[in-house]
Amino acid sequence: MDVTPEWVVDGLVAKVRLGLDAEALRMAASELIARHPLIHDSTKQLSLQIRKGSDDPWYESCFRDADIAPETEYDMLNPELEDTYFKEVFAAFPFPVFRARLMALTSRHCYSVHHDETPRFHVAIETSKHAPFVFVDRNEVFRVPADGDGYWLDTRQEHTAMNGASDLRIHLVVGLDQWA
Amino acid sequence: MDVTPEWVVDGLVAKVRLGLDAEALRMAASELIARHPLIHDSTKQLSLQIRKGSDDPWYESCFRDADIAPETEYDMLNPELEDTYFKEVFAAFPFPVFRARLMALTSRHCYSVHHDETPRFHVAIETSKHAPFVFVDRNEVFRVPADGDGYWLDTRQEHTAMNGASDLRIHLVVGLDQWA
Repeated sequence: MDVTPEWVVDGLVAKVRLGLDAEALRMAASELIARHPLIHDSTKQLSLQIRKGSDDPWYESCFRDADIAPETEYDMLNPELEDTYFKEVFAAFPFPVFRARLMALTSRHCYSVHHDETPRFHVAIETSKHAPFVFVDRNEVFRVPADGDGYWLDTRQEHTAMNGASDLRIHLVVGLDQWA
Repeated sequence: MDVTPEWVVDGLVAKVRLGLDAEALRMAASELIARHPLIHDSTKQLSLQIRKGSDDPWYESCFRDADIAPETEYDMLNPELEDTYFKEVFAAFPFPVFRARLMALTSRHCYSVHHDETPRFHVAIETSKHAPFVFVDRNEVFRVPADGDGYWLDTRQEHTAMNGASDLRIHLVVGLDQWA
């Protein structure tokens, strides 16, 4: 790995410079969602990576870990994204990623407090100061800025994310084995 | 006032010992909600104090500040509560209170980030470690324990509360002029 993560919150959040065009990413996400709507009601999702043999590529990875294939199997970019800005986004990741999804949180909703099996890597697409992560055991509040860079979060620790703003919060979220 | 508040988070949260019976309060709330259901969908409410001449005593104070009478006018206990444990609860408050409500937050919901005109005083009835306040500018996470005591919170600062657990979170919330 040729990047040096920069700790933002010790042991919990590290920034990785990706140098993406935040506005291009926002437009690409908007166009994609118009073609393939996010699934679920308040914690909305769309799969960007697929696995071999999937018959529901846009949504198959959008269910609970226990109800899908092992998440490392979702490791191929959906071919329909080859000609979009997402191709550049995935090329910018300095490590292999899997189960990439757009994850959106509607106004006045939060996730159940939970922990993931692996850390997650987030690129914020649409967000606000009122849509932070809350690491409940650490009592840490952290906002991922929509700055075109990526943020590794140790989501193996108990956490949630909330949206106390009126607009949709949209993140690109990927799984990764680095720093696990 | 004959109580000494004990700071829990400097300038933000103070505990006031009320010595209530947390289980009796829980039962009283449960019985009351069975008779008079909470209003609204995800951020549910029920008025406990009324104002003179109200024709909708259980719900009139459950709307936005701009849509109700000045909140200090809701200063009389609903007469139907005279023979319930709520009578003792209100007698235990060592200062005048107004616009008392039961406020419930359903699973995986949060309030819009906002600030109130006055501080609020909370007695937690049903809660969990996954249902904290988040003071977004201060980056403070605070859980009101359901311990039969009361917690003054400087809700004039930007905040929200979230429920990342599966059970309903229910607080008794009152307005007060003390320490304003």
